[in-house]
Amino acid sequence: MDLGLSARGAELHEAVARMVREEIAPQDAAFHAAVGETGDRWKMSHRQTEILEGLKTRARERGLWNLWQTHLPGGPGISTVDYAWLAEEMGRSWLAPEVFNCNAPDTGNMEVFTRYGTDEMKDRWLGPLMEGRIRSAYLMTEPQVASSDATNISMRCERDGDGWILNGEKWWSTGAGDPRCAVHIVMCLTDPDGPRHGRHSMVVVPAETPGVEILRPLQVFGEDDAPHGHMHIRYTDVRVPGEAMLLGPGRGFEIAQGRLGPGRIHHCMRAIGMAEKALELAVARGRARQAFGSDLLSLGGNAERVAEARIAIDGARLVTLRAAWEMDAAERETGTMKRAAPAISAAKVLVPRVALEVCDMAIQLHGGAGVSQDTELARLWGHLRTLRLVDGPDAVHLRTVFRAQVPRG
Amino acid sequence: MDLGLSARGAELHEAVARMVREEIAPQDAAFHAAVGETGDRWKMSHRQTEILEGLKTRARERGLWNLWQTHLPGGPGISTVDYAWLAEEMGRSWLAPEVFNCNAPDTGNMEVFTRYGTDEMKDRWLGPLMEGRIRSAYLMTEPQVASSDATNISMRCERDGDGWILNGEKWWSTGAGDPRCAVHIVMCLTDPDGPRHGRHSMVVVPAETPGVEILRPLQVFGEDDAPHGHMHIRYTDVRVPGEAMLLGPGRGFEIAQGRLGPGRIHHCMRAIGMAEKALELAVARGRARQAFGSDLLSLGGNAERVAEARIAIDGARLVTLRAAWEMDAAERETGTMKRAAPAISAAKVLVPRVALEVCDMAIQLHGGAGVSQDTELARLWGHLRTLRLVDGPDAVHLRTVFRAQVPRG
Amino acid sequence: MDLGLSARGAELHEAVARMVREEIAPQDAAFHAAVGETGDRWKMSHRQTEILEGLKTRARERGLWNLWQTHLPGGPGISTVDYAWLAEEMGRSWLAPEVFNCNAPDTGNMEVFTRYGTDEMKDRWLGPLMEGRIRSAYLMTEPQVASSDATNISMRCERDGDGWILNGEKWWSTGAGDPRCAVHIVMCLTDPDGPRHGRHSMVVVPAETPGVEILRPLQVFGEDDAPHGHMHIRYTDVRVPGEAMLLGPGRGFEIAQGRLGPGRIHHCMRAIGMAEKALELAVARGRARQAFGSDLLSLGGNAERVAEARIAIDGARLVTLRAAWEMDAAERETGTMKRAAPAISAAKVLVPRVALEVCDMAIQLHGGAGVSQDTELARLWGHLRTLRLVDGPDAVHLRTVFRAQVPRG
Amino acid sequence: MDLGLSARGAELHEAVARMVREEIAPQDAAFHAAVGETGDRWKMSHRQTEILEGLKTRARERGLWNLWQTHLPGGPGISTVDYAWLAEEMGRSWLAPEVFNCNAPDTGNMEVFTRYGTDEMKDRWLGPLMEGRIRSAYLMTEPQVASSDATNISMRCERDGDGWILNGEKWWSTGAGDPRCAVHIVMCLTDPDGPRHGRHSMVVVPAETPGVEILRPLQVFGEDDAPHGHMHIRYTDVRVPGEAMLLGPGRGFEIAQGRLGPGRIHHCMRAIGMAEKALELAVARGRARQAFGSDLLSLGGNAERVAEARIAIDGARLVTLRAAWEMDAAERETGTMKRAAPAISAAKVLVPRVALEVCDMAIQLHGGAGVSQDTELARLWGHLRTLRLVDGPDAVHLRTVFRAQVPRG
Repeated sequence: MDLGLSARGAELHEAVARMVREEIAPQDAAFHAAVGETGDRWKMSHRQTEILEGLKTRARERGLWNLWQTHLPGGPGISTVDYAWLAEEMGRSWLAPEVFNCNAPDTGNMEVFTRYGTDEMKDRWLGPLMEGRIRSAYLMTEPQVASSDATNISMRCERDGDGWILNGEKWWSTGAGDPRCAVHIVMCLTDPDGPRHGRHSMVVVPAETPGVEILRPLQVFGEDDAPHGHMHIRYTDVRVPGEAMLLGPGRGFEIAQGRLGPGRIHHCMRAIGMAEKALELAVARGRARQAFGSDLLSLGGNAERVAEARIAIDGARLVTLRAAWEMDAAERETGTMKRAAPAISAAKVLVPRVALEVCDMAIQLHGGAGVSQDTELARLWGHLRTLRLVDGPDAVHLRTVFRAQVPRG
Repeated sequence: MDLGLSARGAELHEAVARMVREEIAPQDAAFHAAVGETGDRWKMSHRQTEILEGLKTRARERGLWNLWQTHLPGGPGISTVDYAWLAEEMGRSWLAPEVFNCNAPDTGNMEVFTRYGTDEMKDRWLGPLMEGRIRSAYLMTEPQVASSDATNISMRCERDGDGWILNGEKWWSTGAGDPRCAVHIVMCLTDPDGPRHGRHSMVVVPAETPGVEILRPLQVFGEDDAPHGHMHIRYTDVRVPGEAMLLGPGRGFEIAQGRLGPGRIHHCMRAIGMAEKALELAVARGRARQAFGSDLLSLGGNAERVAEARIAIDGARLVTLRAAWEMDAAERETGTMKRAAPAISAAKVLVPRVALEVCDMAIQLHGGAGVSQDTELARLWGHLRTLRLVDGPDAVHLRTVFRAQVPRG
Repeated sequence: MDLGLSARGAELHEAVARMVREEIAPQDAAFHAAVGETGDRWKMSHRQTEILEGLKTRARERGLWNLWQTHLPGGPGISTVDYAWLAEEMGRSWLAPEVFNCNAPDTGNMEVFTRYGTDEMKDRWLGPLMEGRIRSAYLMTEPQVASSDATNISMRCERDGDGWILNGEKWWSTGAGDPRCAVHIVMCLTDPDGPRHGRHSMVVVPAETPGVEILRPLQVFGEDDAPHGHMHIRYTDVRVPGEAMLLGPGRGFEIAQGRLGPGRIHHCMRAIGMAEKALELAVARGRARQAFGSDLLSLGGNAERVAEARIAIDGARLVTLRAAWEMDAAERETGTMKRAAPAISAAKVLVPRVALEVCDMAIQLHGGAGVSQDTELARLWGHLRTLRLVDGPDAVHLRTVFRAQVPRG
Repeated sequence: MDLGLSARGAELHEAVARMVREEIAPQDAAFHAAVGETGDRWKMSHRQTEILEGLKTRARERGLWNLWQTHLPGGPGISTVDYAWLAEEMGRSWLAPEVFNCNAPDTGNMEVFTRYGTDEMKDRWLGPLMEGRIRSAYLMTEPQVASSDATNISMRCERDGDGWILNGEKWWSTGAGDPRCAVHIVMCLTDPDGPRHGRHSMVVVPAETPGVEILRPLQVFGEDDAPHGHMHIRYTDVRVPGEAMLLGPGRGFEIAQGRLGPGRIHHCMRAIGMAEKALELAVARGRARQAFGSDLLSLGGNAERVAEARIAIDGARLVTLRAAWEMDAAERETGTMKRAAPAISAAKVLVPRVALEVCDMAIQLHGGAGVSQDTELARLWGHLRTLRLVDGPDAVHLRTVFRAQVPRG
C-alpha cells in the first residue's frame, strides 16, 4: 500500500506545487477582483481571460495538463495516488484546477465522453474540453426532490420520434454559468416504472439547445462563484437526437457510478490543500498578533488547536490517499473502481469535516478578518461546507461505509 | 431564581411574539429583496422605508417600543429575564429588533447616553434614537490589532486646545453604513503610558464630522448586511469639542464594561430565537422530503439530531436566562452588573455554539437549498458565526469564566 | 419558572450541605475500606454499621430524613426543585443518599408502596423502609433481552391457583446484594399475547421466598459496589399470593412509568454533585502540580477545559432543575408527572454526558492517580457511565425528546 | 510511503493472526479466571503457567518470537510498518503480546539492554528476557510529581563509594508485580543542579536488591491486572554497583528518548486491534438484539455510529502506520528515530481517543453487559483510558506536534 509519489509523480508534483505557489495562487485575488468588471458577473473580462489563459498556456507548455487522466490512455502516466498529491496542491488556489485543465465538473465529463461517448461526441465535445477551449456542466441535482437518493431524480426524458424530449428543472449545475460552457450531461428519468436503478438515463445536451433556460445563479453562503456559477436551470421541451443518450436507456446509474468516484476523491484531495492553507493562515496570524502580553498562539488552547489541526489533516490525507490507492488497485484488478466505494465514502465523510474544523479554527484566530472578504477563509469555509452535500451528503456515504462493514442478511 | 416571565412580561411577550410571527417575519424577504433597488445598497428605497417605518409605527402604537430599557426609568417595567424572552422572539426575524427599537448597537449606545451623556447629547442623540429617527454606531474594533484584548485599541485621541483630535481606523462598525446613522461612540487611546485599563476614553463623534471616512463595507460570509452594514472607517484629524469625551479621559473601560454586558446577553437571546427557527426549518424539511422510502427524519441519526438540538437549545436558553437573572440581581443589589460577568460570559460562549450546531444540522437536512439564498439558514449561520467573535471572542469569555472558578493567588 | 430554593428548601439545603461536607463525605473512605473486612463483601461489618447507622441517626434527629417525599403527604414540604438542590449535595458522597434515606432504588420502591401498595405491604415493607431498617430492590432489566425496550421483558409470571408463579432471570438489581435487602419489586410478563403495554405486571416478592437465587454480583468497571451490589438473580418457581400483584395484571407499565420519572431525575441531581466534585478535584490538582515551569492549570488548554466544565455543569444543572420544575407543575396541574417526560429525558441524556466529560477531564489532569484507587474519580466515572444506560439508555430518551418535538402524524 | 506488509511481514502476519484468533484469544478468559486461584493474585497458578508457557512454546517453535526486534540484528527481518500490522493482531488478545515475547515493558527494556547494556547485563538480563524466562519493569513515573514533565523526576541516586544509592518512590511500574519480574530499569536524579536534560540517569536494579519494597498494586478502574500489575514501589537505600548506571550519569533522557518511541507506537498498534475487536462486538450485539421491532443496528443513529467507528479506526491505523514508516525511514537515514517524534506523538494522541470512542459506543450498544465483567469492553476501556496518560499524556504530545508545526523563534 504505497501512498507516496512515484518518480514520475514526484516530478510532476514539484512542478505543480511550484507553479501553484509562485504563479497561480498570487493571481487568485486579481481574478476575483475582476469578476463583474464588464458589468456582468457572468462574462469574463479581458483581464480575467488574460490571467487565466496565460496561466493555462504556461501549464500546457510545461506538460502540466489533463493530469487527471490517471487511468486513460494518453494520460500523464501516474496513479490516482500520485494525482491525489497533485490535486492537494491545486486545492491551494481557486484558479489552479482550471489552469491544469483538472477542474470539476469537466474532468468527470471528459471521463464520461472518453468511456461512453460516440465518435461525434468525442470530436465535438471531448476534444475541445481536453484542450480547455470549452467548459461543460453536469446536471444531476433537482430542486424538488431529495437528490441524496438519486432514484428520486425526476426530470422527464421521453421518446419523440427517434429523439428525446426533456422537461424539468435542475440546480447546482456547477459551471453552467460560465460563458464558455458549451455542453450539459444530464441525468433524467426515462422509465418511471422500471427497476429502481434502471429508470434513469444520461443524455448529452448542447448548452445552446432551444428550451434550455438558465433561471438564476445559486449562492453558497452569499458567494455566486461567478463566472462559473452554480445554476438553476429549466428545460422546456428540450429536444435531442437519439444518439445523445449515452449507452442507451436505463443506464444512467451505471454511468453515474463510474463518473462520481474519482470526482469525489478529487474534491477530497483539493480540500486537504485548502485545510493546509487555512492552517498556515492560522499559524501566521497567531504568531503575528499579540494579546494579553503574548502572541495568540501562546494563549489558552490555541497551540493545542494547531496541533489537533495538524493531526486531523494528516489523518484525512492518509484516508484520502488510501482511497486513491484502493481505486488504483480496484481498477487494475477488476477494471472498475466499484470495490473502492466504501473507501471513497469514508474519505468523503471525513475530509470535509476536518477541513471545515481547521478552517473554522483559523477564522476564530483571525477575529473579524476571518469572516470577511479580507482573507480567503470565509470563502473556503463556504466551499468546504458544500462538500458535505455535493456528490452525496454525509448520511449517504455513511450508509455505504456501514453496508461494507455489515453486509445485509 | 425565577426564570419565567412576570405578568407584565408575559403580556408583552404575547404581543411581541404575535407581531413578529404574523407581521414582521413575513416582511423580511421583501425588505431584503429591496436592498439595492435604488442602485445603491446603502440607501433605503421607498419600499424599504415603507416596510420598516410602517412596522415601527405599529409597534410604537402598541407600546412595544424600547423594551430593552429594563433598568432605566421610563422603561417598560420588566426585568432582564423578561426581556430575554422577548428578545428570543425578536431573533426570529431580521427586521424585528429594529421594529421594536431594540437593535444593536443602538440599545447599548442609548444606554451609554442615558447613563453618561451630557444634557446636550441627550437632546441631540438620545432623544432621536429613542424615537427611532436616527441610528448610531459603536466604534471599538480595529483592523491592525487583536481587539480581543481591548487594551490594544490604538486609535489616537489627542488634546487639541480644549477639544480632541482623533486619528486611526476602526472596523466592524455595525450600522455605520446606514444612511440614518448620525453618531458614533468611539473607543480611543488617550494616554498610551497610563495604567493598563486607564489609557482609553470614549468619545462621541457626529457621523458627519469632517475627517470621518467610510472606507468600505465588510462582508460576513459574503453578506454585507446592507443597508446597515459593518463598516471599515478611517478617522483623519477628526476634531471634537472637549465635552464630547464621556466621563473624562481614561474612563473608556469603565463605560465599555457597563455597556457590553447587556449587549452580549441580547445577542444570546436573539440567537436562541434563531436556533429555534433553524430547528423548525429542519423539522419541516425532514418531514417533507423523502429518500430511500422514508421521510428524512426517519433516516439514520436524523431524529436523534433533532432531539439533540432540542436539548441543546433548551440548555442554552436556560443558561441565558440565568445570566439575565444574575444581571437583575446584581443590578438590584449592587447597582452594577459586574458580578454577573461570568454568567454572561458563559452564555456568550455556549449560545452561539449551540445555535451554530443547530443551524448546521438544518443546513445539512436541506441539502443544497441550505447553503443557498433560498432559505435563511446560510445567512443565519454567517450571522451566528460572527457572534463567536463579536463582543469578545470565545477565548476571552472562557478566561472570565475560568477566573471566576479559580481566582488568582 | 422558579428554579431556586424555597425558604424551607434553603433551610434544609444548608443543613444537608453542611452534614454531607463535614460529616458524611469524610467517612466515605473508611466505609469503603471496611468492605469485606468480615471476609464476605456482602456482609456489613460492625465498623460499617457503626458508621452508617450513626450517620443515619444523626440525620433523622435533625429532620433530614425521607426528604425525597416531595409529593407525598407527611413529606418534608418541599418541591422537586428544592429536592434537586438537596440531591446535588447528596451526590457529593457515596454514603449520603442512604444516610438521608434517599437512596435508589428504595425511594422509588417506597413511592410504589405508598401509591399502589396494600395495607399489608405498607405495614410489612413501607414502614421499615421509611425507617431505614430494611432495604429493597427493583427487578426490571434482564440479561437475555434488550431491556431498553421494556416490552421485551420476559420473566414469566403465571397463575397458580389464586397465586402467581415466577420464573426467569433478572440482573442489575441494585441493592439486592445488601444483607438488609428484604423485598423485591419485580416487573414480569403475565400476558404475552396482550396489547404491547398491557402484557406486563408488577409483583412484590419477599427476598427470602424459596426459589429466589442470587447468582452473582455484577461489576461496573471492576467495582462490585458491595455491600449493596448489582445482582444477577434467578427466580425458579417463585410463588407469591395473588395480592402480591400491584394494581392487577397488565398494569406493570402504568406503575413503572410513575416510578421511573423521579428516580431518573434524582440520578441526574446527584450526578451534578459528582461533576462539581470532580471539577473541584481537577482544579485542586491543577493548582498543586507543576510542569514545564507552571502549574498545570496554566498550561495549554487546561484553563479553557475548566471553564468549559463550569459552563457545561451549570447548563446541566439548569436543565435538571427545569425538569424538576416541570414535574412539580405537572403533578400540581394534572396529578401525574407524565407531561414532564420529555424534560426528564432531556436531563437524563445531558447530565451523565456532561458529568462524564468533567470527570474525564479531571482524570486526565490527575495522571495515573486519576484512574487508580487513590482518588474517587475512576469510581465516579464508572458510576456515571452506567447512568447512560440505567433507567433507559440515551437512545430511548432521545426518542422521547424527538417525539415531543415532532409528534407522530 | 509503503504502509503495507512486506512479503516476509505478510507471512508472519498470517501466522500471528491465525494463532491469536484460534489459539490465544480463546484462552484469555481462562487465564483471567485463574487469577488468584492460588489465594494470591500475585502468584501464577499451575493452570496459568500451563496456558501461558504452552502458548509461548508453540509461538517460539513457529518462529513467532521477539518479533519486535525490527531494527536489531538477529531480528525477524521486518520493518516497523510490518510490525505494526502484527501488533494490531496481538492487541486482540490480552495474552498475545507475552505469548510472542512482545509485551511492554519488556520489549523496551530489551532494547535498552541491547543498545546500552554491559556484557554482564546482556548475560544476566537480556538473555533470559529474550528467552521469555524472566520479566522486567521500567520505573519512571513517581507519585509526588507531575511526571508528564519528566524533568520533575525526583528519585535520588547518589554516589556511594564506587556504587550508587537510590532512595524514593515510583509507581505505575507495570509488570513489577509479576513473580517472574527480576530486574528494574530506573530513571533517577543524579545531579539536581545540572542542565535540565542532564540531571537524570538510568540505573539497572535487580528486583531482589535489599531496600526494594513493593508497597501495593495500583488499580486501573478497579482492575489490578494481576499477576503483572502496576506497582507502587519504594526504594530505601538501595545500593547498586557503579556499572549499574547505563552510559553514565546525566544520560537518562538520552536513553529514555530512544526507548520510548517504539513503545508508544506499539501501544497504538495494539490499541487499533482492541478498537477492531470492540467494533466487532458492537456489530454482533447490534445484530443479535431486538428493540422496538428492529435489530439495534437499524435503530436511530446506530448504523451511523458503526460507520463513524469504521472511518475513525481506519484513519487511526493509517496515522499509526505512517508513524511506523517514518520511524523506519528515520532509523535508516539518520540512525535514530528522533525525526519521527512528531508523527509518533500524533498517533499517540489520536489512537487512544479513537479506540476509546469505539469502545464506548460498543459499551452503549451492549447495555448493562457492556460495563460488566461479561464482556471485555469495560476492561478494554480502562486499559485504553490509561493510554492517554502512559508514556506522556496527550498534552505533552500535542506540544510536540505543535512544535514541529511552529518551530520556536
